[in-house]
Amino acid sequence: MKIILASKSLRRQELLTKIGLNYEVVVSSSEEVVDPKLSPLDNCINISFEKAKEVKEKTKGDRIIISCDTIVVKDNKIYGKPKDKEEAFNMLKLLSNTYHDVYSCLTVIKVKDNKEEIFKEQGIGTVYIDSMTDMEINDWIEKGNPYDKAGGYAIQEEFGKYITETKGDFYSIVGIPLNKLYNLLKKIDF
Amino acid sequence: MKIILASKSLRRQELLTKIGLNYEVVVSSSEEVVDPKLSPLDNCINISFEKAKEVKEKTKGDRIIISCDTIVVKDNKIYGKPKDKEEAFNMLKLLSNTYHDVYSCLTVIKVKDNKEEIFKEQGIGTVYIDSMTDMEINDWIEKGNPYDKAGGYAIQEEFGKYITETKGDFYSIVGIPLNKLYNLLKKIDF
Repeated sequence: MKIILASKSLRRQELLTKIGLNYEVVVSSSEEVVDPKLSPLDNCINISFEKAKEVKEKTKGDRIIISCDTIVVKDNKIYGKPKDKEEAFNMLKLLSNTYHDVYSCLTVIKVKDNKEEIFKEQGIGTVYIDSMTDMEINDWIEKGNPYDKAGGYAIQEEFGKYITETKGDFYSIVGIPLNKLYNLLKKIDF
Repeated sequence: MKIILASKSLRRQELLTKIGLNYEVVVSSSEEVVDPKLSPLDNCINISFEKAKEVKEKTKGDRIIISCDTIVVKDNKIYGKPKDKEEAFNMLKLLSNTYHDVYSCLTVIKVKDNKEEIFKEQGIGTVYIDSMTDMEINDWIEKGNPYDKAGGYAIQEEFGKYITETKGDFYSIVGIPLNKLYNLLKKIDF
């Protein structure tokens, strides 16, 4: 059965390839709108589901749609992708020398013979970023392209040298709850 | 100053490249002998140091030697690189559906103007491997080349799909305490 990844994130594509999945990419054009009345986790779940639904609606045939949304959360506030250098700097300054959480919310929609099943899973990780000097933050902003990364960093790239500690689901910090996705796909008959 | 990595591990080489270091590789030929009278951690520290010392002795000039040893520990017993398929199977069977620890012991020797300084750091991570079926274990053994990996697995490869949880220093689980190495190199004047 055809597998569709509803994400342009290269990190997610690499992880799916790593676990041996054959998939095609159909990028969702649904907007990632945060509802301030909902908790960060519920926002993450909803955004992931909206992306999956949008891609389901614009594709056809028997198919599995995999979608994921990743957010950085500190003090119950969501930190998304920074829009510019200043926002990236302030975000990393705030995340430096302390703990924050990362949620990755997975949606899998299976469509077979026009029947639809929806599965949702969430993975949570905690990260401690080392104390960073302003020079180190600026250096990362120059080289690391923080603008397509929740929280402005990627744990698996050069930024790894600033990671003091993690707890929980590591691959959710990278961008997808890999073990939960794997177990879900084992259970889904396709 | 010249940086020498005393390790043939591709994972360590990738991590050093990732953090922007220019280095050459000189592989140590010191044997990794475990002393049963010492604790797993002390064995790890000693093996790392012996590798660094051996490479120091066969190289010349002002130089920084970086060496690391990684061991998997469960119930105070060391699990090294499995020698054959049977050992790999038994090791993974034992590590499946439970927690174990991974130690990465770093040695850095700086030689400048014939003066020598030695630095030692250790990183520790805890891993929970999901329950694996015999078929999954055999599948990984076929594809994953467990024989050059402590504990028979590599967290950053396809095996990632079996990782339920980690705690502590993630890059020590991969093979080097990256944040500690980075901070050490910042402090060393070279």
